Amino acid sequence: MLQTIPKWGIYEISLKGPIGGNPFIEVELFGIFSYGHRKVKVRGFYDGEGIYKLRFMPDIEGIWKLTTLSNCSELSELTFEFQCKGLEAKNHGPVKVDQVTHFIHADGKPYYPFGTTAYVWNHQADAMQRKTLASLKEAPFNKIRMCVFPKYYDYNTAEPEIYPFVGEPLHISNGTFDGSEWQVKESGFDFERFNPKFFQKLETQIQQLADLEIEVDLILFHPYDHWGFASMGEVNDIRYLKYLIARLASYRNIWWSMANEHDLMELVGQKKRSAWDTLCKCVIAEDPYQHLVSNHNFHHPPKHHMDKSHWYDHHKSWISHASIQHDNLFLIPEWLEEYRKPMMIDECRYEGNLNHGWGNLTAQDMVSQFWKAICHGAYATHGETYFNNDGSIWWSHGGVLKGESVKRIAFLRRLVEEEQLQLVPLGRESSHWETAMGISDETVLIYLGGSSQASFKQFDTLPDGKSYKGQLIDTWEMTMEPISGEINRATKIKLPGKPYMAILLKEILG
Amino acid sequence: MLQTIPKWGIYEISLKGPIGGNPFIEVELFGIFSYGHRKVKVRGFYDGEGIYKLRFMPDIEGIWKLTTLSNCSELSELTFEFQCKGLEAKNHGPVKVDQVTHFIHADGKPYYPFGTTAYVWNHQADAMQRKTLASLKEAPFNKIRMCVFPKYYDYNTAEPEIYPFVGEPLHISNGTFDGSEWQVKESGFDFERFNPKFFQKLETQIQQLADLEIEVDLILFHPYDHWGFASMGEVNDIRYLKYLIARLASYRNIWWSMANEHDLMELVGQKKRSAWDTLCKCVIAEDPYQHLVSNHNFHHPPKHHMDKSHWYDHHKSWISHASIQHDNLFLIPEWLEEYRKPMMIDECRYEGNLNHGWGNLTAQDMVSQFWKAICHGAYATHGETYFNNDGSIWWSHGGVLKGESVKRIAFLRRLVEEEQLQLVPLGRESSHWETAMGISDETVLIYLGGSSQASFKQFDTLPDGKSYKGQLIDTWEMTMEPISGEINRATKIKLPGKPYMAILLKEILG
Repeated sequence: MLQTIPKWGIYEISLKGPIGGNPFIEVELFGIFSYGHRKVKVRGFYDGEGIYKLRFMPDIEGIWKLTTLSNCSELSELTFEFQCKGLEAKNHGPVKVDQVTHFIHADGKPYYPFGTTAYVWNHQADAMQRKTLASLKEAPFNKIRMCVFPKYYDYNTAEPEIYPFVGEPLHISNGTFDGSEWQVKESGFDFERFNPKFFQKLETQIQQLADLEIEVDLILFHPYDHWGFASMGEVNDIRYLKYLIARLASYRNIWWSMANEHDLMELVGQKKRSAWDTLCKCVIAEDPYQHLVSNHNFHHPPKHHMDKSHWYDHHKSWISHASIQHDNLFLIPEWLEEYRKPMMIDECRYEGNLNHGWGNLTAQDMVSQFWKAICHGAYATHGETYFNNDGSIWWSHGGVLKGESVKRIAFLRRLVEEEQLQLVPLGRESSHWETAMGISDETVLIYLGGSSQASFKQFDTLPDGKSYKGQLIDTWEMTMEPISGEINRATKIKLPGKPYMAILLKEILG
Repeated sequence: MLQTIPKWGIYEISLKGPIGGNPFIEVELFGIFSYGHRKVKVRGFYDGEGIYKLRFMPDIEGIWKLTTLSNCSELSELTFEFQCKGLEAKNHGPVKVDQVTHFIHADGKPYYPFGTTAYVWNHQADAMQRKTLASLKEAPFNKIRMCVFPKYYDYNTAEPEIYPFVGEPLHISNGTFDGSEWQVKESGFDFERFNPKFFQKLETQIQQLADLEIEVDLILFHPYDHWGFASMGEVNDIRYLKYLIARLASYRNIWWSMANEHDLMELVGQKKRSAWDTLCKCVIAEDPYQHLVSNHNFHHPPKHHMDKSHWYDHHKSWISHASIQHDNLFLIPEWLEEYRKPMMIDECRYEGNLNHGWGNLTAQDMVSQFWKAICHGAYATHGETYFNNDGSIWWSHGGVLKGESVKRIAFLRRLVEEEQLQLVPLGRESSHWETAMGISDETVLIYLGGSSQASFKQFDTLPDGKSYKGQLIDTWEMTMEPISGEINRATKIKLPGKPYMAILLKEILG
């Protein structure tokens, strides 16, 4: 009887092969998965102890055949068959771009990202990881930004338990962060030998997140390094990407975030800007499923805040969506118009109480950022930077969420999902930053801002000749109440004269 | 016995002259005021009913002589003498630029502008004017923006009791504002004949404000017009300026604000942009005392918010200080660096509850704008746009102040005056909008922003090697408490983790 794999599940086969020499370098393995006339070529990987693996995520029900190819005869020209059948609960397939600036699962279920950030929760002790997963289970977040590599940065000076490569760190932090250590001249690790246990652990974590229906915006490179992982050079980078993708691409909840703050890596001399084209091309060439790809920026100079010269060029064909760090979300409509891709505002300051400007946003303003992003036609990512007594901070270590924004973000997510809002910008006030207004079919959602307290509003950018029923939303108190009467572009809508209000309008169909 | 005039008081002489024809056009009168070898030529004006006047503000004690010049023989070559002696209470002389980006009275008393806006309080009924003056007496404002001409705009559709020219309006509003009426093709007024009573009233109001120690930022032109005053043409504009300046320049509390929203006048076709150079040159040529001159902008496009193409060029030599409308005060340090003149942020949204974005700022954010302006090395102007049941709004009509920002602005003004702070920017966080930090001699004032809630801060832009004693300020609660210990650039200052906080640092001198 044939092995059965659910649609967008993972088919995996283990093969015994050579254990001597350096299998990571010396052995090449591919699988040709075929379905009817369709053939998909997938890279295999060495998983240690003489075991070689091939993984595959089938996207159509029926009989799939596999033939292996290898430079090692015992691994080559083996054939297998399996049946793809049925669907797992909670598995809606990978996320793709939909309607130019939105997202959808492969099964047609709309996906509205409400992200959070816990960069290296996966590198913490097991007890802490369990806490993080328990928090995520209760939280409204369906996407998480997290790093493959461990992190060395302010508030992040502990060594991880396990490393991606064979070797040992040459430097152990004294507990005080020193940014100059990011320029690593000599590494204690052998970049030609992966540590399979490291990646097995990462896979477990990705699966745990899949079980929670959380997309993994996996950060492939980042500058917060003192091991040399940020500056391995192109040959090692490419080998790492191929190995990582061979292992992970079959997880339906993977997104490839090329870097966190790619331009900071340039700034501190870890990677040239020109490196990213090569690395991106490698990712899309190696990934049989064309998971989402983005490249996140560091620089967003407020004084020249329309200057995007430090951004990776989101126009490039291999970039599926813009992953943006910026705290002025008023600019989203321009970005949408320029790039015509989904805008993930993956950093717009975090709710917390750190000294750093990026990490001391009030809860009110964190919620406000989400509403602005959504009503301008984009999506936002949360982070929490309250310093805990145990030294942990959600943004990096995970743990427990204690902020006041989380439940308000949950309120917004419910609204967006219930109303199935794929908003596009619908005009805005020309001279101020506050009002954000989007339309999705017959529904209009308007956010009035955190520094505005209008006692009434009129929206002359509403479509001409249309009438609406309205709901007044207090985004902070999480209340909705009907607005009496019909509303059109000439209506003066009475408001309570306080900040953090929003309006939901649903067209009265004739 | 000689008439005695206090220093910076007003010497005025009335002469009888021709009453027939058009004295405004036909009669020219000048006074040559001399003191020792110094001669000051001052234009006289016709005040109606056969009376011609000359006014003069002496700035030095001693005997001044006057000789008249006129094309009318009965007014020419008359000579007079008076003595300038002593000082009036509350008269510190006109305000000048000091220390590149600050202000000072002629007597050396520092002047820190804390402005408000009541554009046409002077055109309201007497009872309302008395209310306004009573409000100003209690308020912290020492500068007011107000218009010579009446105003026709949203919430401003009533006709004034008196007009600056002889004639009658051709259009009377039906109570609903219609912006298209700003394009006046035909006026019911004779721009060649001033109405002296109108200007006498304005003089009374300017003197009332002088008695309250309030500087008058007098707006000479504005677009909110349906009488034709905004589009009289250059010949009439120049005649009006000469007449106005002849009457008002001797008031020590006058500033010339060439326009409110000069570029809006261009936009609606009332004046070409090139007109302003000519009008400014006229003002500085006619004003014997070189009162402050500015020209206020309308446009401040948020999406290209560094774009200053719609600003009048504040570099021009006749501009004493930049009068700016903008709501992003993070940019002040760049502006200071570019123009090297004082920055008056004369519009940065008003506390209120109107539908318009410019008029529905929360009290918290109005206070925040003042703190940002001051700590970045500039000055701000308040406005209040709560809609009252009698149809009045402080920002335009004056009346009663009811906002929550006023007393917090008073708190800030007291601090600035007590500490004598002429702040210049002292670095700032590179990537976020929030912290504003200025230094004035041995004192540093830091505002931490309305969306930030740091639990501690370290300021590595503080001067190297210096130590400070600190005060923690809650700008909203208006409290100050000492910070224990000495503070330097390496000190982590503990904070309460809430928004609207500031820090005052005073250097410990060795």
